[in-house]
Parts: sequence; structure tokens; C-alpha cells
Amino acid sequence: MATRTIYFGRFISAPTPDDLLIQTGAVLVSSNDGRGIIEKTDWTVNGPSDALSKFGVEVPVVTAPDNGYFFPGFIDTHIHAPQYPNAGIFGKSTLLDWLTTYTFPLESSFGNTNSPMYADATTPPDPLARARAVYKRVIAQTLAQGTTTASYFATIHVEATNLLADIAFDKGQRAYIGRVCMDRPEMCPDYYRDESTEASIANSKASIDYCRKLDPSGDLLAHIITPRFAPSCLEETLKQLGTLANDEDLRVQTHISENVNEVKLVKELFPDRKSYTDVYDHAGLLTGKTILAHAVHMSKEELETIRERKSKISHCPASNSALGSGFCQVREMLDLGIEVGLGTDVSGGYSPSILDAVRNACIVSRHVGYLKGGDSRYNLGVAEGLWLATVGGAKVVSMEGRLGKFEEGMLWDVQEIVLGDVDAHGEGQDNGVDVFGWENWEDRVAKWVWNGDDRSVSRVWVGGRLVHQRV
Amino acid sequence: MATRTIYFGRFISAPTPDDLLIQTGAVLVSSNDGRGIIEKTDWTVNGPSDALSKFGVEVPVVTAPDNGYFFPGFIDTHIHAPQYPNAGIFGKSTLLDWLTTYTFPLESSFGNTNSPMYADATTPPDPLARARAVYKRVIAQTLAQGTTTASYFATIHVEATNLLADIAFDKGQRAYIGRVCMDRPEMCPDYYRDESTEASIANSKASIDYCRKLDPSGDLLAHIITPRFAPSCLEETLKQLGTLANDEDLRVQTHISENVNEVKLVKELFPDRKSYTDVYDHAGLLTGKTILAHAVHMSKEELETIRERKSKISHCPASNSALGSGFCQVREMLDLGIEVGLGTDVSGGYSPSILDAVRNACIVSRHVGYLKGGDSRYNLGVAEGLWLATVGGAKVVSMEGRLGKFEEGMLWDVQEIVLGDVDAHGEGQDNGVDVFGWENWEDRVAKWVWNGDDRSVSRVWVGGRLVHQRV
Repeated sequence: MATRTIYFGRFISAPTPDDLLIQTGAVLVSSNDGRGIIEKTDWTVNGPSDALSKFGVEVPVVTAPDNGYFFPGFIDTHIHAPQYPNAGIFGKSTLLDWLTTYTFPLESSFGNTNSPMYADATTPPDPLARARAVYKRVIAQTLAQGTTTASYFATIHVEATNLLADIAFDKGQRAYIGRVCMDRPEMCPDYYRDESTEASIANSKASIDYCRKLDPSGDLLAHIITPRFAPSCLEETLKQLGTLANDEDLRVQTHISENVNEVKLVKELFPDRKSYTDVYDHAGLLTGKTILAHAVHMSKEELETIRERKSKISHCPASNSALGSGFCQVREMLDLGIEVGLGTDVSGGYSPSILDAVRNACIVSRHVGYLKGGDSRYNLGVAEGLWLATVGGAKVVSMEGRLGKFEEGMLWDVQEIVLGDVDAHGEGQDNGVDVFGWENWEDRVAKWVWNGDDRSVSRVWVGGRLVHQRV
Repeated sequence: MATRTIYFGRFISAPTPDDLLIQTGAVLVSSNDGRGIIEKTDWTVNGPSDALSKFGVEVPVVTAPDNGYFFPGFIDTHIHAPQYPNAGIFGKSTLLDWLTTYTFPLESSFGNTNSPMYADATTPPDPLARARAVYKRVIAQTLAQGTTTASYFATIHVEATNLLADIAFDKGQRAYIGRVCMDRPEMCPDYYRDESTEASIANSKASIDYCRKLDPSGDLLAHIITPRFAPSCLEETLKQLGTLANDEDLRVQTHISENVNEVKLVKELFPDRKSYTDVYDHAGLLTGKTILAHAVHMSKEELETIRERKSKISHCPASNSALGSGFCQVREMLDLGIEVGLGTDVSGGYSPSILDAVRNACIVSRHVGYLKGGDSRYNLGVAEGLWLATVGGAKVVSMEGRLGKFEEGMLWDVQEIVLGDVDAHGEGQDNGVDVFGWENWEDRVAKWVWNGDDRSVSRVWVGGRLVHQRV
């Protein structure tokens, strides 16, 4: 038996890269087995009772306040859940030293009592207790930022990875959970790697099974095949993961061409492959459900291969800036027809907020435009940034047509945004965004993009379920 | 009669660009005529009663919580107070079209009833009421962000500028208040410009007098001579402003070489001057108390002149990125011995937070380093960013030795930072920063820099006066 709810108020979205769509009216959401879908929309509705009468139903009406709006939930196409405690901790490192200095010690502590992080422990380490605390917090905090869908890298540990799946499922975030595969002995520390190709595949299968038991539909929760990146995996492991992804029709996520030294390293480690892209392609890992994070240093030929395979790009601008990785050529990718979404890449990226990723994508695009002689064609504006964060993200996680817009048949994965009002005496609220009253709604959305944070996110729904409410 | 207070707890500061200084202990602050100065420090003190006994006094003790610390107040060396309502509103513009599209209409509304912003007004415009609301909010919000000193551009209007001085003085922020001078007819809109050189000088003098009446010492509040930028001023006006600044021993602030088209324009408008820097130098505006905002496109010769004149640079990275202005060569300037501080440049910059300016300065420096072949020498790290925001800022506003460190004789312009704690169950507080407990203090400060906001700022003092307390 379906339950229904009407949402009434202002609906803002970015269905195309060019413009915001600002509508008022109502939508009727019908939830069946916890899958809340927009059954009808009516942009002529002018109030809650008008909504009930026009839809011809007697159901609860949820109303967005006058200084707020419904906005499609954000999609974080690349985030490392266990690295959340390191957000902001990266010093002056770049990718390869950052991994060994900050990342492997922290990740290993989710399953290995011999992790360097436990070297000075005075009580026996409890890796699962740590995993539980961190994972509960990262799911709560990303939901609080309006992230309704996230594609997570976990760690190599089956138990901790399954715990992340439990917590995401319990809190109701739409999540793709990746047990990290890394087994190339010379590239992975002794204290943190899969023992062999066989162990890598078996452990990933255990996590696949676990996710399927939690959510047989795979709609809300699914495993995603996750080789860390080419240098950390044996060639045989990459190949078997490719086969597994194709056999099981699963999503794939990995990193590609983030850093110039990494690209050189891949060339050395895989002398028979003609490019970084070719390493993955040769292993069967470039599918239409593959998410490639970063893609900063790509040849035209590589981009062409990715386009042909219909693989997707997760652009992680905050991370690329923080680690000095370089400038992702987003405009070229979009022009080629490659599908691009945004990722926070916590903790290469310092923030769990996709709104922050929108800001950084806009900033980086201006740097690119400046370097191309002040060509504004490279600029990502507010609408295009938000389009990448919602519709773009939906394409990247293979949920195109189901997420990112307020249209009939779409899932109700939505955040309610409420901005701060400054009154005539200059008094306002505790909200990063100050609206004085004369701004039009395009300008208010711009203010939200540039100064908003979790304080602007008052309620969040996933599949029609209320999963976060700001107290 | 002096009043005294002891502050006890953790004191963190960035007295040098290389390292954070992390101390625990106590300082004794003595306030005389509202000028609170550090009388003594003792880094052996281990508790409030120990502090009383070691200092040999009976006075109130203010204690920072375990998960917090005292940090020197931020210095915003470049912010446009009237533009605060436009924070985040800039579209895809660059400097010159941004001025005419967004900035002049808003600024003019603080004094001109014929401002384009009032074109559709249904009730009679009240420019001063608008100025009061905006200025109250901008002072409250910058204090809430930990900004204890700010160098403000106001508008051309004497009455509204004096109101900004009133509000800053009343709320207790250390502030330099600049009435904006702009009178070149072909570069300023008819609805928003000084009538003549004479009017420009007379109006600035009126504002100078007003500020001196409010604070005869000039310690907490002072006028700052403010030609908007070379293109908007007649050459004669620049010259008379230079004379005025020198005669009255006042600070000067203006913009320089922010944008390539602006630099070209200056060349056209001032054909007899050999560079943008020379325009100001020729007018006597390059003094040891001059703040030059941006300085993105500077020749070596210009930097050399600035160094010789001991003029200062306000680096505004968020603004330069948002408006696609280019990359400021901060490392070169510091290497040359030029003094540099940070500015938010609201609303070319989208955020009123100097912590955000620290983040953007770090990010831009990595872009510069990447463009120089991955040279990490260009990297600004957390300590250097914070040093720019405090000690650097103090130099830029001619308060070196009085602001920015916890040393005897320094003014007590301080923010108390409190971070969020995540407990063993993954529950935390409503604070942008999540500390899990195992992080050392360098890492906690990094977390604050990268994810902190006004929620981390629990109390703010200026000259020993409590001017903000988070509710």
C-alpha cells in the first residue's frame, strides 16, 4: 500500500547547464516499499489546500518556508568514508606522499591492529569501534550537507566495509559501497594490503553478497567494484575485477591521472599499455557504469576512449587544488559528450560538502579560463555547477532519469534549503547566507552557492524518507 | 584606573610564516581607557589558581575550554562594507563589468535616491536606513568571523560613511573607515560620483573630522584616505589626496593592477605615467601606510618601487579567483621583503571570512606552484596563511608590534576558537570542525583552517573588550 505526501512551495533545480529552473507549485510523492517517487507535479498550485484539491487527495502537505526552496539532493560521486577524520590534514603533500603519510595509516586502522596509528596506543586497539564512530559521523555529516547519494571508497577490510553499508542503509542515504582492492606488494605497505588476487576477489565478493542481502533491489544500496588505482593493483587483479564487474553488472570506481608523478608511475608499472586509460580498458574496467575520479592529465585519445566506453568522470576540484594536482579540463570533457559529476574526494578534498565542490569547480574553471587568455567559455557558473552536482552526478552514478530533477517518475531525493533573513534593523539568523530582501531568486541561489553550508539545509529526504532534519 | 583580566588555556598563534606557536599558560591583560594590553605572559601556569598566584593578583580568570584555544584576531586588510549584500553575486563578470553591473548600483543606494536599485521602488527610498541595516550586519558578521580589525571601503556618501564609523566604534571593532573618492566623469556613472576634486577633498575632510571626534586617539577607529582606483579619479584629485594623506599622516587604501583590462585602461588614461604604480607614486599616494589591494599584474620594477616606498599589499585570493583576475605572486613579494596581508574583498570576494581567505590563499598558491612545474616553494601552508591573516595583516594596517601575537605589550585583540568533538559513538556538535580525539594540535588547527566557520568562534575581544559572544 502506497503512502503519499504533497510537497508545496518553491522548487529550484538545474535541469540544464545553462539556467536555473525556478518554479512554485506542488508535487505529489508516492512511496511504495520505501521508494518515494514523484507521481505528479502541478506548477499552477498556489497553496496547500489548492494542492489537495488539484491532486484530488487527502494526504499530509509538507511546505517549504517563504525564504526557502526544495532542491534536488546532491550526489557525491567520489568520497573516501574512512578518510573523513583527516579532512583538512594534508600539509604541503602531493598525491603519492599524501597516501603514505596520511592516508594508509588512517585507513589501515579500520581493520589492522598493527596500523601505525595504533603504535602509541595505551589500550588494545578496537578497529571496528573506530570504523563505527567514523562511519556514523560521515554518513550523518554528508546527509546534513544535502548529499542524498554518495559513492564511497571504504577500506580493504570486509567487516568494516560491511559496517559502512549497514550504517548508510540504516540512516537511509543512497550509497554505493566500495571495498578497496590493493594488492601490489611494492606499492602497498605491508600493514595495509590484500594478500593476493584471490583474496582480493574473494573479499570483494563477500562485500557484494552482504550489500545484496541488505538491499536486494540495489536501488538504495549496492556494492561498487573499487580497485584503488592502477599502481596499487596487480594486473591480474584488475582483470579479474573487470570480469567480476561485468559478470555481476556492478558499478566500478577508481582513480585516473590525478597527478603527473602518478601518471609517470603507471607508465613504468604497465609498460605494455599505451596509456593510463588503456590499463583500465585492457582490464575490462571501462564500462558504462564506471566512475573515474580526477582525470586531470588526459590525452585527447584517452578522453576519446572514455567517451566511447561511456565511462564517467568524477571532477574533484577541491582535492585537485589542495594537493596541487593540476586543472581538470571540464569544458573539453563536456564538449566531447563525456558525462561529468562532482566529488568531494574527502580527504584529498578537505570538505564533505558538495556545495563546496560546486564553489571550487567554479573557481578552478575561472583559473582555466584565465590561463586560456580570459576565455569565459571555460567558466562554470552557478547553474552549471549545480547541474554537475545533481543531474551530472545522476548520470555518473548511472541514475540518469531517476535523480536530479522535479519531474514525474523521479525519486524524491531532495533537500529543503532555508536562507537567513536580515531585517530592517540589520539583525539576522545563524545561517551562512544573509538575504536582505531585494534579491531575486537567481541571486539568492548564488548567495547560497557561495556562502551556504549545512545550516542552510533544514530537511533531507531520500526515496521519500526523511533522513535528516536540522534541529 | 586599570581593570585586569587573566586569560588561561591554550594559546595558538603564527608569529612566523614557518610554524605555529602552540603554548599553554596564562596572560594578564590590563585595560586602561578601553585599551587592553598584555601586561604579562607566563607559559608555566597550569591552572586558574596557579595563574592568580603566579601573577600575584586577584582578578577574573577567563578560561578557554579543553577543545579550544585563543588565537589572535584576524585582520581584514581590504573589504567593501556596502557591498556585503552582494556577497556571492557576480555571475560570470570580470572587474570592469562587475563594477557597473553589480557594484555601483548597490553602493549608490546608500546615499542617492536616484540609484538604479530604487528604480522600481514603491515607497520613497531611504538610503540611510539601508546603510544602517547593512553596516550593522557587516560589522556583526565580520566580528562573528573573528575579524578584530578591518580596513573598510565605504561609499562616496559622507553621511553613510560616518554611520559606518559610528557602528564600528559602537560595536568595538578596530576599523579604518574610507570614504570612497571617485570623480572622473567618463569612468563613473552620473548617478554615483563626487562632483569635483574640491567636493572630493571636502567630503573626505568631513569624514576625517568625524572619525577624529569619535576616537581622538585614532587607535580603535581612524579615517583612511580612499581613492577607489586610478581609473575612477582625476589626476588632480589623486594628487590632492596624496597631499592630504601626508599632511594628516593618514593611512591610504586603493586598488592596483587587479585585472589585465584595468591595467590597459590605466595606461590609456594616464599616458604620461610609466606604470600603474607610477600613477600612485606620482600623486604621493605610495606611503609606508598605504594598502594596495590585489597587485596581480605587476612588473618587477613596480614591485621594487612598492618595496622602496614601504607600501603594503592586500592579497585577496577569493576575489581574484571569483572574478578570474589572475594569480597574485605572493611568494615573490614576500621574497622581496614586501609586506602582505589578506583581504576578503567583499563582494569581489564572496565571503566575509578571513579564514576563507586563508584557504583561498593556500589554494591559489598551489595553483601557482603547479604552474611553475610543481615547485612546492610557492606553497603557502596553514601556518603561513595564518601568519598572513594576523602578523602580515598587522604590518599592512601599520599595527606591527601591536597586533598578531601573544606577547607583552600587544593589544588583546583575540578570538577564542572552540572545535567540535566527535564521541566514541560518532555523535558530534554543530560545528564545522569534527575532532575525533587522536589528532595533535597542528592537525586540529589545520582542520579548523580548512573547515572552520563562525561556529568555531565562541568569543571575540578587541582591546580587551568582549565584542562578540556566540550564543
